[in-house]
Amino acid sequence: MWNLWDVFASEFFGTAVLLLLGAGVVATNLLPKSKGRGGGWLMINFGWGLAVFAGVYAAWKTGGHLNPAVTIAKVVAYWFDPAVTLNGAAVGSETAVAVNFENVIVYIVAQFLGAFVGAVLAYLAFKKQFDQDCDPALKLGVFATAPEVRSYGWNLVTEAMGTAVLIVFVMVAGGTPSSVGPLAVALIIVGIGASLGGPTGYAINPARDLGPRVAHAVLPIKGKGGSDWSYSWVPVVGPIIGAVVAVVVVYLLGLGSIDITAALPL
Amino acid sequence: MWNLWDVFASEFFGTAVLLLLGAGVVATNLLPKSKGRGGGWLMINFGWGLAVFAGVYAAWKTGGHLNPAVTIAKVVAYWFDPAVTLNGAAVGSETAVAVNFENVIVYIVAQFLGAFVGAVLAYLAFKKQFDQDCDPALKLGVFATAPEVRSYGWNLVTEAMGTAVLIVFVMVAGGTPSSVGPLAVALIIVGIGASLGGPTGYAINPARDLGPRVAHAVLPIKGKGGSDWSYSWVPVVGPIIGAVVAVVVVYLLGLGSIDITAALPL
Amino acid sequence: MWNLWDVFASEFFGTAVLLLLGAGVVATNLLPKSKGRGGGWLMINFGWGLAVFAGVYAAWKTGGHLNPAVTIAKVVAYWFDPAVTLNGAAVGSETAVAVNFENVIVYIVAQFLGAFVGAVLAYLAFKKQFDQDCDPALKLGVFATAPEVRSYGWNLVTEAMGTAVLIVFVMVAGGTPSSVGPLAVALIIVGIGASLGGPTGYAINPARDLGPRVAHAVLPIKGKGGSDWSYSWVPVVGPIIGAVVAVVVVYLLGLGSIDITAALPL
Amino acid sequence: MWNLWDVFASEFFGTAVLLLLGAGVVATNLLPKSKGRGGGWLMINFGWGLAVFAGVYAAWKTGGHLNPAVTIAKVVAYWFDPAVTLNGAAVGSETAVAVNFENVIVYIVAQFLGAFVGAVLAYLAFKKQFDQDCDPALKLGVFATAPEVRSYGWNLVTEAMGTAVLIVFVMVAGGTPSSVGPLAVALIIVGIGASLGGPTGYAINPARDLGPRVAHAVLPIKGKGGSDWSYSWVPVVGPIIGAVVAVVVVYLLGLGSIDITAALPL
Repeated sequence: MWNLWDVFASEFFGTAVLLLLGAGVVATNLLPKSKGRGGGWLMINFGWGLAVFAGVYAAWKTGGHLNPAVTIAKVVAYWFDPAVTLNGAAVGSETAVAVNFENVIVYIVAQFLGAFVGAVLAYLAFKKQFDQDCDPALKLGVFATAPEVRSYGWNLVTEAMGTAVLIVFVMVAGGTPSSVGPLAVALIIVGIGASLGGPTGYAINPARDLGPRVAHAVLPIKGKGGSDWSYSWVPVVGPIIGAVVAVVVVYLLGLGSIDITAALPL
Repeated sequence: MWNLWDVFASEFFGTAVLLLLGAGVVATNLLPKSKGRGGGWLMINFGWGLAVFAGVYAAWKTGGHLNPAVTIAKVVAYWFDPAVTLNGAAVGSETAVAVNFENVIVYIVAQFLGAFVGAVLAYLAFKKQFDQDCDPALKLGVFATAPEVRSYGWNLVTEAMGTAVLIVFVMVAGGTPSSVGPLAVALIIVGIGASLGGPTGYAINPARDLGPRVAHAVLPIKGKGGSDWSYSWVPVVGPIIGAVVAVVVVYLLGLGSIDITAALPL
Repeated sequence: MWNLWDVFASEFFGTAVLLLLGAGVVATNLLPKSKGRGGGWLMINFGWGLAVFAGVYAAWKTGGHLNPAVTIAKVVAYWFDPAVTLNGAAVGSETAVAVNFENVIVYIVAQFLGAFVGAVLAYLAFKKQFDQDCDPALKLGVFATAPEVRSYGWNLVTEAMGTAVLIVFVMVAGGTPSSVGPLAVALIIVGIGASLGGPTGYAINPARDLGPRVAHAVLPIKGKGGSDWSYSWVPVVGPIIGAVVAVVVVYLLGLGSIDITAALPL
Repeated sequence: MWNLWDVFASEFFGTAVLLLLGAGVVATNLLPKSKGRGGGWLMINFGWGLAVFAGVYAAWKTGGHLNPAVTIAKVVAYWFDPAVTLNGAAVGSETAVAVNFENVIVYIVAQFLGAFVGAVLAYLAFKKQFDQDCDPALKLGVFATAPEVRSYGWNLVTEAMGTAVLIVFVMVAGGTPSSVGPLAVALIIVGIGASLGGPTGYAINPARDLGPRVAHAVLPIKGKGGSDWSYSWVPVVGPIIGAVVAVVVVYLLGLGSIDITAALPL
């Protein structure tokens, strides 16, 4: 069995890779003096999808959650079915990570810390771009999401729906023999971004948004503005709501499989 | 054997996912106050392809038709070969869905209802975008297709051809050992959209067009225009013609395989 | 063993699908009154890649050549190694297509006829777009390639190189255990187009260019110009040169595998 | 066991294919009289990703390094674990390439020579485009990378990080059962380009940058400018630093697998 350090290192490292690449593609698209400036929404969608791809591989030991909403979905799934483990390995097997309080906390803490560190790395990779003069909202946009039309209720709806699609996929894919593994998850992220990212920028992951927002607040970014804390709870609460609803609906409709991370590498 | 409720839930849920993402990518591209506005045709192509990808996984129990044209192709194929089942499982096996009147009706009803509900969900995800002022044709365009040059006969031809390519792929892929499952179907949809979507917007699926068109008619969308009922029969009839022709041609040429959904997850 | 009719039907049908989608994506990009007008070079690259994807599946019985340059490469490979068959099946097996004069002729004739018919189908799918007024060169561009800078010698070099990359891939992929089948070939086509398509439009296939050029000449296209016969030999001769050189180089370097279509579906 | 000639031919040929396609996509995007001019950053990302895809297949015998940073990562990994071989085959097996001084030198020399030759081939494929008048920086840009903001220290950081992500992926993917082989490596390259390519153009490979820079210096390119030798050491040193750091971190965190090229074709 993986010990707590293994669990922490895996989720921390995977989420750091996720944010290094994810914040990176936004920086490539938005910041001045970037070769990919104005590359467009589809480039951002592929960038985030492939960031998940790389991060899931990096966190293969723990099933590559990288996202507290996925971890919470696992906890809800465990309530329906005690055969669920956090990383999809068989209960009690050597590599299984059991659903219990301390493991869940380690996952979530590692995800937030990894997201923070990944955003700091992305800042360093784009240091000279952040040093350019531009709208402070662009610099914040590399770290955290913001809605195009601010409306907390509807923004929550959009974030919940995007996350629900992710969780539905993760749950049902385990029941099919045709999975292509992390590539499938990556493509689902591309699809969610292209389809449901327009209104709020698809955080669909509390750690992905809050960790880097803290990084934005503490880093000495030249010419930065505020970190928009008034919105910061939406990409935390919305994804959690979406994840819980998705698990319940899939179980009630009888569409899910037992092992909700069978599509991930373990 | 799956009972009628299982069949209904699977096709309904899968088609709802299809339309949530499919209508979503059009909304992302067309509506004001969307981060992906003007993302372009290739983004729309990938968005719909990945919408099919997600929907096929969600409807894995029933072979992921999501499209009455696919279901009708199955019925025609069954006329050629009684070993055909609706979801590709072996005749009489525990998970097979037999080709019979009540199953076919349940598939098609579930597809239309799922498409309607998916479009309503997409409306909710983009509620604040739909509240913006813009050309009513853009708002309708999120729900239903429209031709660039209105010519019912030629529009039928284009819709039939696009659907025929889809059905040909589904039929022949079952005979090959190299399938990559739902990913292949998703990519075929990307290809059909990029290649044959220009004239009519590639409905290639009666449920995908008519269900959301009804949603457009009944939803309280701010500043909406008419639902263009005069065109509504084309994306229903064209795909059915294309599906029937494709099955007949493939069988007559001896190119098909028996199991026309072997490329889908079951 | 497949008989001559099976061989003809398979290559004919696959190449028709290739051109329906391939000519289609160019029409989507270039013609007026197309939703995807101006979709860009990457859309064209994906469109042609996925056209090959669909066509290879449709022509699975014959190894999905769709291209006389591939068939000729097989003949050259057979000269090095008598274990080569046209569709990659083991010599003498029930489904093998032997390398012999009549089979090779049937492949090539089927490819040219299929390309012609596919281009006619694409014309019908875009009939109302072809009826619009626009530069005749755009209408020809849907059917046949043309160089940006006319220089027969250098255009031959470019066409030969693009084709050589395709043949190298087809030859070496058979030696690896990681093939993803027709998807890999499709992606190689995307790559060749993105990387080597700029100067001449990457015919890299004599049938893909000459068959549709004949279609352009005989179809009653409104406002069409000439069919540019003076260039027509370049996309025929260039790909053949590239294919022969690639096979010889790969064999001399000892990098190839025996079965040059093992990456294709058979 | 492969002999030195096999090793040389494989890495040389694969890296030549890499640069033919990689330099090609930049030429397609930047040079006048190219059909894909202005195709955009995502096209460049896919072009380089698929260049790696093709090159890895071509160099399957040697594990498809194509990059001295990967070879050096192997040497460092061998220091941690003597079971490492250069091409991932089991130690002492017939096809293994052992980690020893002469093999490492042959890999690296072959990579630089292959990159040089591939760039020359790309020059020939785009000969008439290079003959056009345009900013000499565009012509150099086809061969070698340049930073948007020149700052050797920060440019090193960016190049090191991009390379580290590549090496992390190559190391951890071997531990998972879900690899899709060279396709996964190709997609990681797409992702690194989209996410971390903005500041410096992501050389992430000493041979990819230096070999073609020498080609630029010696080829009789019409209207060329200088070869920017003052920057030339950055894309050599940065990737090596990133590779070494990545291997050490992955081993110290206990996240790696023994065989760091199990995701590659052998």
